[in-house]
Amino acid sequence: MKILHTADWHIGKKLFGYDLLAEQQAILQQILAIAKKEKVEAIIIAGDVYDRQLPDQQSVSLVNATFQEWNLTEQIPLLVISGNHDSAVRLATGNPWYQQSQFFLHTTLAQAIQPITLADCQFYLLPYVEPYQIKQFFQETNPKHPLAQNVPSLEAGIAAIIDLMKASFDLEKKQILVSHFFVAGSQRQESETPLEVGGLASVAADLFGDFAYVALGHLHSPKALTKGNIRYSGAPLKYAIGESQDTKGVYLLDTDYLTNQYQAKQSSQAVQAPTGLTEAALRFIPLTPLHELRALTTNFGQLLHPDDALKKISEDYLAITLTDHEPILNVMAQLRSQYPRLLSVTRQQIALQQTDNQLSYQEVQNELSPEELVQAFFKQLTNQELSKLQTTWLNQGLQAIQSTETKDD
Amino acid sequence: MKILHTADWHIGKKLFGYDLLAEQQAILQQILAIAKKEKVEAIIIAGDVYDRQLPDQQSVSLVNATFQEWNLTEQIPLLVISGNHDSAVRLATGNPWYQQSQFFLHTTLAQAIQPITLADCQFYLLPYVEPYQIKQFFQETNPKHPLAQNVPSLEAGIAAIIDLMKASFDLEKKQILVSHFFVAGSQRQESETPLEVGGLASVAADLFGDFAYVALGHLHSPKALTKGNIRYSGAPLKYAIGESQDTKGVYLLDTDYLTNQYQAKQSSQAVQAPTGLTEAALRFIPLTPLHELRALTTNFGQLLHPDDALKKISEDYLAITLTDHEPILNVMAQLRSQYPRLLSVTRQQIALQQTDNQLSYQEVQNELSPEELVQAFFKQLTNQELSKLQTTWLNQGLQAIQSTETKDD
Repeated sequence: MKILHTADWHIGKKLFGYDLLAEQQAILQQILAIAKKEKVEAIIIAGDVYDRQLPDQQSVSLVNATFQEWNLTEQIPLLVISGNHDSAVRLATGNPWYQQSQFFLHTTLAQAIQPITLADCQFYLLPYVEPYQIKQFFQETNPKHPLAQNVPSLEAGIAAIIDLMKASFDLEKKQILVSHFFVAGSQRQESETPLEVGGLASVAADLFGDFAYVALGHLHSPKALTKGNIRYSGAPLKYAIGESQDTKGVYLLDTDYLTNQYQAKQSSQAVQAPTGLTEAALRFIPLTPLHELRALTTNFGQLLHPDDALKKISEDYLAITLTDHEPILNVMAQLRSQYPRLLSVTRQQIALQQTDNQLSYQEVQNELSPEELVQAFFKQLTNQELSKLQTTWLNQGLQAIQSTETKDD
Repeated sequence: MKILHTADWHIGKKLFGYDLLAEQQAILQQILAIAKKEKVEAIIIAGDVYDRQLPDQQSVSLVNATFQEWNLTEQIPLLVISGNHDSAVRLATGNPWYQQSQFFLHTTLAQAIQPITLADCQFYLLPYVEPYQIKQFFQETNPKHPLAQNVPSLEAGIAAIIDLMKASFDLEKKQILVSHFFVAGSQRQESETPLEVGGLASVAADLFGDFAYVALGHLHSPKALTKGNIRYSGAPLKYAIGESQDTKGVYLLDTDYLTNQYQAKQSSQAVQAPTGLTEAALRFIPLTPLHELRALTTNFGQLLHPDDALKKISEDYLAITLTDHEPILNVMAQLRSQYPRLLSVTRQQIALQQTDNQLSYQEVQNELSPEELVQAFFKQLTNQELSKLQTTWLNQGLQAIQSTETKDD
């Protein structure tokens, strides 16, 4: 069975005030094109469909139209959960009708422990939950369970939920878990919303040893975790400047090449570590956005008179670091006419490690006059001496401060 | 065919800060009980399902659960439109899947002109629209239509939409229009949101002569309009103090007893006025809320020491008019412990028509001293003279004002 794994669409997300809806619409079309070309038999969307609990109407329209096209028009089964950014209640609207066309959307723990069987797989769709919801679940379903009293950590809660799932494991099938949380040891990125308070909300990878594949959402890089059979698909687009070097995409899973971990464990005496995923079992397919997100380091003159290479990327989302030292008036406004998706302009930080220029605490405290102090500080930051004119300004400024101080006394 | 007609649920509405969700849940259960008892074959919900474009999660839960129970569990066909309070886009979530179980939810004009045929009826579900949406619709579907240039009024737009509907009228069926707007000549109520700017958003009743029944939402009283075949079902609950004397409920329609207006017109030379609805064709079924909304006029002493009749209604939503004239400290707080759903406490307005007490403009202008003026005003409002103590306070106040005026000069 071929499955496409995506997550963290964050529909409705804005990037430095730019509406990304057209980008998101294009990338979803690209995902569908991959799904059709690869003839996948199901698509996993592992949470954070929306960027917020109360998405705007355009976002709702896009998601509704996407689900309709993928599931009703293209007749692809969908396996979807709510993430920490979604409103589980709002996302669940329409859900009781969806199942008729193999659109499975789980937003509650009661649903999560019910497997969905498609071809050679059993899918468990575990939405993002908080410990209080796990406690509530046990209070309602099994009041004598210790977790009905107290859920000491998310990990303890998830472990108990997985135990419930195991009761319905069919040894003839491969078990696939779809979920949305932070697995301990994963790499974080800038555009993710941290969940943890004091580490209580992370889950150990060891918990998932019985699943043939764990399709996660929450972290935005497909490289966040590549341990055993656990993968974050990552977001389909770069949602932060810090992600400019990333390659975003989707995972393609072929369950024919998966090992049934649970069965393997049952039939062997020794507990084995997950065997990991071969290339035949899992491939990463990169996505190409309408407009790339790039971090550039250059100077203002080059930006005003771009060469061909720069012209070619002028419509992209650009985070620019200027190497200039001189003040430039209205720098964003001047650049925006040529670079319509300019995200930010920052000045290059001069490295402070050069010991020649570095001020000692003692110098700062005692030995330098105010004028010398400013001169030394300027040199430390810019590696240049103050010009004559700058020295004149400095002295005028220092005098003005001094005369104010005298007056106040 | 037996049909239940309801509208204007306004799920999520608050009344003087009180959450009405439990009331709304109970009244929806009562409507379902009527539908089951009467074995209706369809339920019309003529808009304003929600009270706002962005309903809270509890409201979304209630509406989702209601639709699921009515349509999937009880297998009752639903005919639903969006009203001016709904977000058409958000309400439409799940819609492409709903039709499989005869849940018809129309939120666009393109859907509105497509009839839904059930038994002996053709239903046209015309959601609340504004003239700009009618213009957009013609621009997209028939750019040469004059309304693609300009929609001079809602009425002109609705007339053109009805013309499009007529193209699919089946003379063997009875035509039922479900819609949500203000029909000229209807009686308004306090809890409705007016739509009209300068009367442009009202629609003449004459437009609907070809429909066997017009099931409307928007106005909250079932008596808002009882002309010909047009009815507002009204809201299922009282949503304003001014509606305390209303009887809220639902309409039950039996289409066996309807006249096919369109056919009648086609087969006779003379254009006839709609024949109106017999009792066999249309019955009104009142609803009983969990807690009534009542307007009471009484005095504070009676409220503190209620008789049995008052005790019986102490849990209801009460709008109290006090007949007392004396100041009462923290009146709301004092009463709330005994009357947990107290909406408001107002003082009885003394009638100002008593010419004996009335001040003339001339008196006010010239003849009375400040002290006399206040005395006369007090008498006018309370029909009592100032007491000695009150006169002392008045003089102290007037002196204080005078000394301030002198200081300022």
